[in-house]
Amino acid sequence: MHFEIFLAQLVLALFVAKISGEIAERFHQPAVLGELVAGILVGTSVLGGASALPGISHLVIDGSNELLKTMGEVGAVLLLFEAGLESDIAELRRLGGAALWVAIVGMVIPFFLGLGVAMLLHQPMSTAVFLGAALTATSVGITARTFADLKLSGTVEAKIVLGAAVADDIFGLILLAIISGIYATGGQEARSPLLVAGSALLFLVASLTIGLYLAPWILKQVARMKTRAALSTSALILCFSFAVLGSLLGGLAPIVGAFAAGLVLARTEHRVHFEEKIKPVADLFIPLFFVMMGAAMPLSGLNPFTASGRQTLAITAGLSFVAVIGKILSGYTLPMRGVSRSLIGIGMVPRGEVGLIFASIGMSKGLMAKDLFTTIVMTVMVTTFVTPPLLKMVSNRKSSAFSLEDPTTVS
Amino acid sequence: MHFEIFLAQLVLALFVAKISGEIAERFHQPAVLGELVAGILVGTSVLGGASALPGISHLVIDGSNELLKTMGEVGAVLLLFEAGLESDIAELRRLGGAALWVAIVGMVIPFFLGLGVAMLLHQPMSTAVFLGAALTATSVGITARTFADLKLSGTVEAKIVLGAAVADDIFGLILLAIISGIYATGGQEARSPLLVAGSALLFLVASLTIGLYLAPWILKQVARMKTRAALSTSALILCFSFAVLGSLLGGLAPIVGAFAAGLVLARTEHRVHFEEKIKPVADLFIPLFFVMMGAAMPLSGLNPFTASGRQTLAITAGLSFVAVIGKILSGYTLPMRGVSRSLIGIGMVPRGEVGLIFASIGMSKGLMAKDLFTTIVMTVMVTTFVTPPLLKMVSNRKSSAFSLEDPTTVS
Repeated sequence: MHFEIFLAQLVLALFVAKISGEIAERFHQPAVLGELVAGILVGTSVLGGASALPGISHLVIDGSNELLKTMGEVGAVLLLFEAGLESDIAELRRLGGAALWVAIVGMVIPFFLGLGVAMLLHQPMSTAVFLGAALTATSVGITARTFADLKLSGTVEAKIVLGAAVADDIFGLILLAIISGIYATGGQEARSPLLVAGSALLFLVASLTIGLYLAPWILKQVARMKTRAALSTSALILCFSFAVLGSLLGGLAPIVGAFAAGLVLARTEHRVHFEEKIKPVADLFIPLFFVMMGAAMPLSGLNPFTASGRQTLAITAGLSFVAVIGKILSGYTLPMRGVSRSLIGIGMVPRGEVGLIFASIGMSKGLMAKDLFTTIVMTVMVTTFVTPPLLKMVSNRKSSAFSLEDPTTVS
Repeated sequence: MHFEIFLAQLVLALFVAKISGEIAERFHQPAVLGELVAGILVGTSVLGGASALPGISHLVIDGSNELLKTMGEVGAVLLLFEAGLESDIAELRRLGGAALWVAIVGMVIPFFLGLGVAMLLHQPMSTAVFLGAALTATSVGITARTFADLKLSGTVEAKIVLGAAVADDIFGLILLAIISGIYATGGQEARSPLLVAGSALLFLVASLTIGLYLAPWILKQVARMKTRAALSTSALILCFSFAVLGSLLGGLAPIVGAFAAGLVLARTEHRVHFEEKIKPVADLFIPLFFVMMGAAMPLSGLNPFTASGRQTLAITAGLSFVAVIGKILSGYTLPMRGVSRSLIGIGMVPRGEVGLIFASIGMSKGLMAKDLFTTIVMTVMVTTFVTPPLLKMVSNRKSSAFSLEDPTTVS
């Protein structure tokens, strides 16, 4: 019966995701927003409330359900792989300076804003540092998907945000190494920040260089194979391999490796074939990533009818405000003309795993109380939810105001 | 690290499956044979022997690995869904008599041959009944895939085998109910054979009737949706829903429900679109089904250097012989002209889950010793391995001898 329960949950997740995504689009919102809501609906917070009804308890999708969660993580990997496939590495290199700027300023401003909020809340310095650090790193999944929903994936803004998010991931690792080094109290061994930065950069440079050199040769051999779907399967194998190796050798998030694999394969003659064959697979997995993200949200902590719930809500509101404003401000600092700085800043707003990692390390070191951890989880959630509508709003305004002289091109 | 290990195993499974499938094709064998071998290579029997080497132990694919096994089971569901999509329900109905004949005779002959072998081995009557019953039901996955590998999916023979395998699944359930009823010793409650047959048939008739009536209307609504991939996702949702409902309401294997869903969607105007969009998804999942099947095979019991190993090998050889011959003979009894009876008989050879279910129930009731159970598992494995090369051999002979007057058509 295990398999039937899995299939039933998969059907429920996909069905509610599509209906909810459709409703979002009818309200002129990106579909991804609907899929996040779908996750809340089928999760423990909403459907879980009806689990006394016969049969329902099997259908409730717990955010920690390993099968669906893993499929969702594969979805995130495929999402960034698709983003890489649609990117041009030469253009990314050209925009590298802008991306670096956005990444660095986009970490510095939220860090100090978060630190400030924590000080205002009379937190000790060590806690404040972890709170600030938790607000630094962008999670690019939401943005990449929203750009795709809004058909903006080909714009200069999208490229800068993607590049900045990759850089961001590396800087987040370095920051984690530095802070862990400062506050290391035994147990976990702190890695040298130089080593962390070095291995991440080395992996990216080596994988792109070797990949660009070897991929055409590999694909030439594969194209001569007679077995079914050899070419498209080889693309998936390369994508997953880069994701694993980036994580094991470079310490990077799997999605960064997948993005690099996409960049490499985008330069081969089979690019269009890959896009065509990967899309249907991605269409199955990607919605599961956002549904599972929604299903994992701890809504029960947000009850405004209890004193602790109100306090959590208040701190969450404060942290979320600086988390959003911090990234938007850093977008405006970008010294580059002819691009929508607000689109870039908003694109950097969503936070994800890195923030949660900081929070959980802070908690495990006894530097952060449990309710502060919940607050960070909820701040991550707020940044996730506000980004799609904000991006939509700004892209509408831009396209109506600058539709003729806008230098951004949609490929 | 869980996710990285999963990805690494996925890469290994896909990589070895494609290389091994390619080698099989170079030796003019169906790719599926290579994928089964790939499963043995990456499983505990072969790669597991090297697990002392650093890092290797994480890569060994245990046949019971839940994530990959579930993805493989999704592969089996998609395989039969594709087979249904490529079938014509009217043609199946026309071939229904032949399929029923093959299904019934193909259960009776192997049952009595298996019973006979067991009596020769001085087994008690009750054990002999379970052994015979374990040889009755065809598992259609291997055959459907081999027909596809050999580009014979559109032939009359393939349709008859598919229809017979569906009927077979129902008859297997009825037989299970009858035998459990006879040997019920408390514990599991035996269901009435009439109830079993009734619910399975009722589900099939109802799902096909309602499905054919409702599907066009549902797809018309879906086609108006704006969200990405609504149509192809709805096909997957229908496929998985039929699989779950067939299992829960009809007691059928999930693949039978998926086949019915394919039959229903094949009659809609979106058939070609579905085939195009499902294929890349199926190409990822289906090889995993065969790799996991190979990985689950208990090769260690086959050691010819031990006395018990030799005995197991001898019994396995005897049972496998009657298992293969029984189905081939029943193919030859088919009173129908102009079709390749040997192709049909061989197509029915692979056994699968139903055989294992009989064996495990026999064991749980104390009617079957553990080594007899191992023997059945290995007989299932032998029937699986001999089918692709046998089908290939016969289809070669047929196409060279009857290439002009052969009435089989490849659609």
